[in-house]
Amino acid sequence: MKNLESLIKTYNDFPQKGIAFKDVLGIIQDPEVFRELILKMSSNKVIKDAEAIISIEARGFIFGSAISLQASKPMLVARKPGKLPGEIIKENYYLEYGKSSLSIQKESLEKFNSYAIVDDLLATGGTINCVANLIKKSGKDVIGLVTVVELLKLNGRSKFNFPVESFITF
Amino acid sequence: MKNLESLIKTYNDFPQKGIAFKDVLGIIQDPEVFRELILKMSSNKVIKDAEAIISIEARGFIFGSAISLQASKPMLVARKPGKLPGEIIKENYYLEYGKSSLSIQKESLEKFNSYAIVDDLLATGGTINCVANLIKKSGKDVIGLVTVVELLKLNGRSKFNFPVESFITF
Repeated sequence: MKNLESLIKTYNDFPQKGIAFKDVLGIIQDPEVFRELILKMSSNKVIKDAEAIISIEARGFIFGSAISLQASKPMLVARKPGKLPGEIIKENYYLEYGKSSLSIQKESLEKFNSYAIVDDLLATGGTINCVANLIKKSGKDVIGLVTVVELLKLNGRSKFNFPVESFITF
Repeated sequence: MKNLESLIKTYNDFPQKGIAFKDVLGIIQDPEVFRELILKMSSNKVIKDAEAIISIEARGFIFGSAISLQASKPMLVARKPGKLPGEIIKENYYLEYGKSSLSIQKESLEKFNSYAIVDDLLATGGTINCVANLIKKSGKDVIGLVTVVELLKLNGRSKFNFPVESFITF
């Protein structure tokens, strides 16, 4: 996609030594490129086939909500512990740099039958796998993952038994 | 606005005792209401007059990026410490329940001359004031605040010398 790569900056040793961080925030500073990307993401089969979207805190919200608007799909959020009110379901995960957990509002998850997961970046896949497990444990279907960036060397997609749609790879 | 109020749930004593938390996430689960709200927010004078948007972590991203798409305005983000790579500018703030700080990428902030601040909720105004100070310290203009919910009793808007546009009040 024209210009997309030039808008993604790499920061070495962020957030910790040995990590080459891909910063997608430049994309949202260019309305034309952002629109082109969101139109492509929204018209993807994974989004079309899902009843709703789940976007992952916090950069996933940026792409998820624009897709939600464009595709007219309901959106739920997966957030860090302590951030969501009401009854939640929770699961731990391991990422490139540390351990954490994600939660989803139980009542919201029960409303829809199938979900597309949206995030900004696929690295090892730990975060996304965590969200997929939360969806499956609730008896709901994961249609696939839609992500802006995929880091091919880390082979995160090998963890999943659902399609992965990425729009730029490194 | 039709249905908007019914989609905002109140959770008492969240995230801590004495706080009546307004959960805006129900809005994004109803694509028609979400679209109607985003169209109204995007066509607001504060958004139209600003060169760019700054949305505040993390629920602010949800409304900010949809407005950014709809209004074709560049978006920057204000985030908690340690979340943004590269050179940042930072300021402390006090909110209803605790102390924290927010940061913005310096290079991004320098790109545009005037900003509309976007968040989900105006309470005491501490967070928004912090972002406004970061913008002003960088010699840029704050055009105003666009927020979904305003808690009138806390009178957050008295802190600001710029217009506040809220779409539902409690």
